Amino acid sequence: MNRITILLLGVATLSGAAVFTTTVSHRAVAQEAAPVFVTTIPPGYRDWRVVSVAHEAGELNDIRAVLGNDIAIKAYRESKLPFPEGAIVGRIAWGYVASEENNKSFGREQSFVAGPPTDAYLQFMVKDSKKYAATGGWGYSSFDKDGKPTDEAAMKKCFPCHQAVKDRDFVFTRYAP
Amino acid sequence: MNRITILLLGVATLSGAAVFTTTVSHRAVAQEAAPVFVTTIPPGYRDWRVVSVAHEAGELNDIRAVLGNDIAIKAYRESKLPFPEGAIVGRIAWGYVASEENNKSFGREQSFVAGPPTDAYLQFMVKDSKKYAATGGWGYSSFDKDGKPTDEAAMKKCFPCHQAVKDRDFVFTRYAP
Repeated sequence: MNRITILLLGVATLSGAAVFTTTVSHRAVAQEAAPVFVTTIPPGYRDWRVVSVAHEAGELNDIRAVLGNDIAIKAYRESKLPFPEGAIVGRIAWGYVASEENNKSFGREQSFVAGPPTDAYLQFMVKDSKKYAATGGWGYSSFDKDGKPTDEAAMKKCFPCHQAVKDRDFVFTRYAP
Repeated sequence: MNRITILLLGVATLSGAAVFTTTVSHRAVAQEAAPVFVTTIPPGYRDWRVVSVAHEAGELNDIRAVLGNDIAIKAYRESKLPFPEGAIVGRIAWGYVASEENNKSFGREQSFVAGPPTDAYLQFMVKDSKKYAATGGWGYSSFDKDGKPTDEAAMKKCFPCHQAVKDRDFVFTRYAP
């Protein structure tokens, strides 16, 4: 190699090292600073389209609608995985309440409807692969009926549980036809 | 009375009679010709916003989302009764299915989700006070998973049952917060 080549290689190596160092330190800072849990309610969520519905019995004792913003609904309908950046999947949970009015009309005890908001009224998963890299690319959030975020200790349970459906990009709910 | 007054009264009476006759015959024709039951699925219903959710146990054994078109949702949110012309309230009913996947994650048997479409998959109430005057201003419709309308004999049960909630313009489902 001539002196010019050696000089250029030296410069390239130095640049590479500098880039590497910058990337590593940037990542370290991002992981330290990144909020893994989301503490704001996405505006307009009550206008989102339906992904599906469910009833959780037991202690939760709720009936729920799972909704998606436009990005999430599009991905669901196209069976696109992983979900694109900006996708938000939300769920609203209401108390699971027997409807005396409906039962009277049906002539039997069979009807359960949405009652008042539950303690874990609203939950959202927000897709941002960089910001929430530590939790599978999703930021998790949960709010009570007054919009107060659930405490961070409880929120640490979200991601470990959602790992059960890693092959569906950590999203439990399937799209209902 | 002078002759002019008598003449005018005579003309007014005749006009009234004519108007009355026209109205009656128009109504009679409308009632004969009007389709009380709707046989087309409103386009885009799967994009409508959520009114509420419910679970019907017993023979129906479904979990359902009640949706509204823009006119219906606006009326619901403004607590406006009766619903304006053009309002449509729809509901999708899926089979009520235990989710083994969710139960595994929760560590207990508690989770019920939306399964395949039911026999009475889709139902709609369409507000048109004139067209559906005979059934409280609402046209009723019901479709199976293949889009086939429910037979007319069964549809005749809709309006009598909905009369139980005449004070809410014949609509059972309340808006969930």
